[in-house]
Amino acid sequence: MWAALAPIGASAGGGYDRFAWTPADRELRSWFRREAGRRGLDAGQDRNGNLWAWWGRPGPGSPGAVVTGSHLDSVPGGGAFDGPLGVVSGFLAIDCLREKGVRPARPVAVAAFADEEGARFGVACAGSRLLTGALAPDVAASLRDADGVSMAAAMAGCGVDPAGLGPGEETLARIGCFVELHIEQGRGLADLGAPLAVASGIWPHGRWRLTFRGEPNHAGTTPLAGRHDPMLPFAAAVLAARRAAGRAGGHATVGRVSVQPGGVNTVPGLVEAWLDARAPSSRALGALVTEVTGAARHAAGEHGVELRVSQESRSPGVTFSQALTGRVAAALGGAPALATAAGHDAGILAARVPAAMIFVRNPTGASHCPAERAAEQDCLAGVRGLAAVLEELAAR
Amino acid sequence: MWAALAPIGASAGGGYDRFAWTPADRELRSWFRREAGRRGLDAGQDRNGNLWAWWGRPGPGSPGAVVTGSHLDSVPGGGAFDGPLGVVSGFLAIDCLREKGVRPARPVAVAAFADEEGARFGVACAGSRLLTGALAPDVAASLRDADGVSMAAAMAGCGVDPAGLGPGEETLARIGCFVELHIEQGRGLADLGAPLAVASGIWPHGRWRLTFRGEPNHAGTTPLAGRHDPMLPFAAAVLAARRAAGRAGGHATVGRVSVQPGGVNTVPGLVEAWLDARAPSSRALGALVTEVTGAARHAAGEHGVELRVSQESRSPGVTFSQALTGRVAAALGGAPALATAAGHDAGILAARVPAAMIFVRNPTGASHCPAERAAEQDCLAGVRGLAAVLEELAAR
Repeated sequence: MWAALAPIGASAGGGYDRFAWTPADRELRSWFRREAGRRGLDAGQDRNGNLWAWWGRPGPGSPGAVVTGSHLDSVPGGGAFDGPLGVVSGFLAIDCLREKGVRPARPVAVAAFADEEGARFGVACAGSRLLTGALAPDVAASLRDADGVSMAAAMAGCGVDPAGLGPGEETLARIGCFVELHIEQGRGLADLGAPLAVASGIWPHGRWRLTFRGEPNHAGTTPLAGRHDPMLPFAAAVLAARRAAGRAGGHATVGRVSVQPGGVNTVPGLVEAWLDARAPSSRALGALVTEVTGAARHAAGEHGVELRVSQESRSPGVTFSQALTGRVAAALGGAPALATAAGHDAGILAARVPAAMIFVRNPTGASHCPAERAAEQDCLAGVRGLAAVLEELAAR
Repeated sequence: MWAALAPIGASAGGGYDRFAWTPADRELRSWFRREAGRRGLDAGQDRNGNLWAWWGRPGPGSPGAVVTGSHLDSVPGGGAFDGPLGVVSGFLAIDCLREKGVRPARPVAVAAFADEEGARFGVACAGSRLLTGALAPDVAASLRDADGVSMAAAMAGCGVDPAGLGPGEETLARIGCFVELHIEQGRGLADLGAPLAVASGIWPHGRWRLTFRGEPNHAGTTPLAGRHDPMLPFAAAVLAARRAAGRAGGHATVGRVSVQPGGVNTVPGLVEAWLDARAPSSRALGALVTEVTGAARHAAGEHGVELRVSQESRSPGVTFSQALTGRVAAALGGAPALATAAGHDAGILAARVPAAMIFVRNPTGASHCPAERAAEQDCLAGVRGLAAVLEELAAR
């Protein structure tokens, strides 16, 4: 299965560029349908473009389904495992159960949620947020990528009708619980010497866009005192973000910046930057962001630059269902619990259905980059563990 | 004449994107040939892609020609006047002289030098540098734009054979003197209340590339202490550049930055930034750049990031020929002298032939942006003044 996935969206730098609603994404979606079809699973796409493959058709009155899965898209230059490992493991876990002759009492499904990384349109977990109603359909449809293409237009090109976007109450009603398997994005398991863990919760986190508007001018001839250079308060904001994150015990990152007009010998007129911030509590996150925007505003004022701050997304902290997580850990034969600062579709779904997560050891701890890795034996332990979990949860 | 130029390379932001060896540049070059042809001037392209229109053919033994002109390319989102004003004024000055029945004793030419802004390949005044030997042909040919296209390939697409690049001794031998008319890039003339000035000299200036290489990772899950985030020393360098410029009495600008992989939720792995620095003396410029790179190196060390600094270009200060500048000022009926921090083809040519410059008032002082302006009456004063200068210089 991995062999068919490997070439899709491979980037020159050795990682993957698998952005939502692109040709690479279409290929990934075709792969999902092929894998479902090969197993005789009933595959389909919901109104928000999330993919589902059903083992046992859920009908009116049927018991809540046991759903597993993850996402297939990536960040720019992302690794091979973040997302696809959960989808591949879902299909393979079903194979295990069938080989063993298991006949589940509940429907079982593998899901691939659309646009989890938000790499193209800036909103993470767009597919699961639309499904649960956490993202308004008109807001989603009007998001634009760097080339000005709207999400509505991009989705339409992949066969999703943007007019149909919106909460999927019928779909949600079918789900008894959701268990997402995912590569760990840190060295927690490596340090513990264990292959698998369950997730205790997700830190509150969000994305803010800082737009610094100054005045473009000649880099050679404009006196320092006559400049309105947005690059200067932007730089101050980058350094403030690091200091604020340290104080809050959280994380803050500026990973994307766009400069206009971008001439080597031109004082910039506009700098647009994205702040990714996460912290152990909602209060700490608020303090972190307030400190960064305050420092940015102060520096902007000093340089005669206008600053606009807009919150592009904010996810509250998630504590996963203790009951479900307990059953998952037991089915795994015991597993440590780890908190994570990364957002996941399971965190979005947790607002509406019991949800849990299984992490697979990542020896380097690297994530969102080609150095992300999982050993084959740990991946296989993940598949066996997930199969045991699905068997237990779907047994009655 | 302006009407035909106006639409070429117009950008969405109201300015111009006229980069060397692009379709917009090809249109500008066709425009030049048309204007020359319309006047019966002998037009041609030299081995480095600079355009020449001759009134009176220079031959062996003919006296040194009086050359005027400037450039047609622009920075990203540049103004309409920076460059084209000097070329248009050159053609119109010839029209004036002919209407007046002037028969010059020396050949007169209008030149349009290639790639003055260096917006695409990073080296300013590439055409005049190649002509005078200040830029080695193999270095020029192997420069690459942001898409990886070499200057050699880009030139070949516009009919310039990259194998022919190199110093144009024959061309230089034909030039008796060069007078470039250019819009002023500051408010010197506006403050003096005069329409025209001559240039006394050009500050030493240059471009440096700072490459910060860290390690891409997940923005959510990578602990602060485990990061090698190149955005942080980059930000420190931006702030250091402003401080150092203040201390040196010069100018320093970071107008372009490129971040890899550029994901909102990814700690960057690579930040590449360009520093434009200028100062009143070579020593002050050296001190400025040493201070910036020192601060950048210190911050890079703190964050476990590797820094590479490369000088992309450096132009020594220029003092224009006092004899020629005196004749130009006299022909203008008296004009104040202004120094500038901006590089010009006249500054490059000054190393090989007597050169001078005429500045036309720019009421906003804005440059390298759409707000750059010159009043029609000042432009006409510039044409009349340039005509008087050419008449005087070509009279014997």
